[in-house]
Amino acid sequence: MKYCAHCGATVELRIPPGDSLPRHVCTRCATIHYLNPKLVVGAVAHWQGRILLCRRAIEPRLGRWTLPAGFMENGESTTHAALRETLEEACARVEIDDLFALINVPYINQVHLFYRGRLLDTDFAAGAESLETALFSEDEIPWQDLAFRSVTRCLEAYFADRRAGLFRFHEDDLSPDEGY
Amino acid sequence: MKYCAHCGATVELRIPPGDSLPRHVCTRCATIHYLNPKLVVGAVAHWQGRILLCRRAIEPRLGRWTLPAGFMENGESTTHAALRETLEEACARVEIDDLFALINVPYINQVHLFYRGRLLDTDFAAGAESLETALFSEDEIPWQDLAFRSVTRCLEAYFADRRAGLFRFHEDDLSPDEGY
Repeated sequence: MKYCAHCGATVELRIPPGDSLPRHVCTRCATIHYLNPKLVVGAVAHWQGRILLCRRAIEPRLGRWTLPAGFMENGESTTHAALRETLEEACARVEIDDLFALINVPYINQVHLFYRGRLLDTDFAAGAESLETALFSEDEIPWQDLAFRSVTRCLEAYFADRRAGLFRFHEDDLSPDEGY
Repeated sequence: MKYCAHCGATVELRIPPGDSLPRHVCTRCATIHYLNPKLVVGAVAHWQGRILLCRRAIEPRLGRWTLPAGFMENGESTTHAALRETLEEACARVEIDDLFALINVPYINQVHLFYRGRLLDTDFAAGAESLETALFSEDEIPWQDLAFRSVTRCLEAYFADRRAGLFRFHEDDLSPDEGY
């Protein structure tokens, strides 16, 4: 951030009075521009025991498989974001169940939320950001070709809970030393 | 948002190719500036059955009581945010337990997370943004003087679960027609 979105003057990094962290502060109008983590919200949607995955048509991780998920928008709820992303990326209609996982990815300033869900029908298809979409049983999951570690962690926890017969809520923090 | 934080030119609201919502797009460098919800993270911290509340020294809702909570910072996890806010607002050290509540406040583009926690000692004090801090039993909670509805909902669920002998995870969506 170099310029003030409010007045267009340059910003400088300094610690405002009463604050403890450097912020982007406008040199003219003194507006403080805070930068905060973004929420990425998605769904683990099942149909007769199989899970819906999308193969990414965009970077990063083009060609890899992922759960339908994306940046939460202003004005919506987390559940709505999960529904919308599943519709956008997989053209799929789901019933959203409980929140299943919260995964912190602090080194890229993101928090990932995954809801459990149930596909309402099998009329899914690749959305604009997907190359293809498909249902996978546990032993068909392309573990080596998953796009993001948060997706891997979420699916590992999902199948472990399913084998145990009880879905619990999971929280996890990823560290930067293992790549995506 | 009127100016591009990247190059300082004016931005215009338009729907970028492949998108479905109007975004602030720079008229010179074409950078798309997304606006996303912010996470507010806090703690329901107890000491021998009583809960730690802070009386706000800042607007909005100056003078009202709240759970220690605030905007999550880039580079931290949600648990760290709960620890940090409890330290900043109540000078209190807590052990953070499970995530207790996720409350969507879509009309102000916020998602509130509250963790259960346990005070490690009673050496708490008003932080810079608090007028005072105190411990409250269930029948001492100043229900009519709470600062935010998310705090009210969280505390109602907390005491209901405690009476039932089982803390569960709660999710709720607030609507704009009831004020704070």
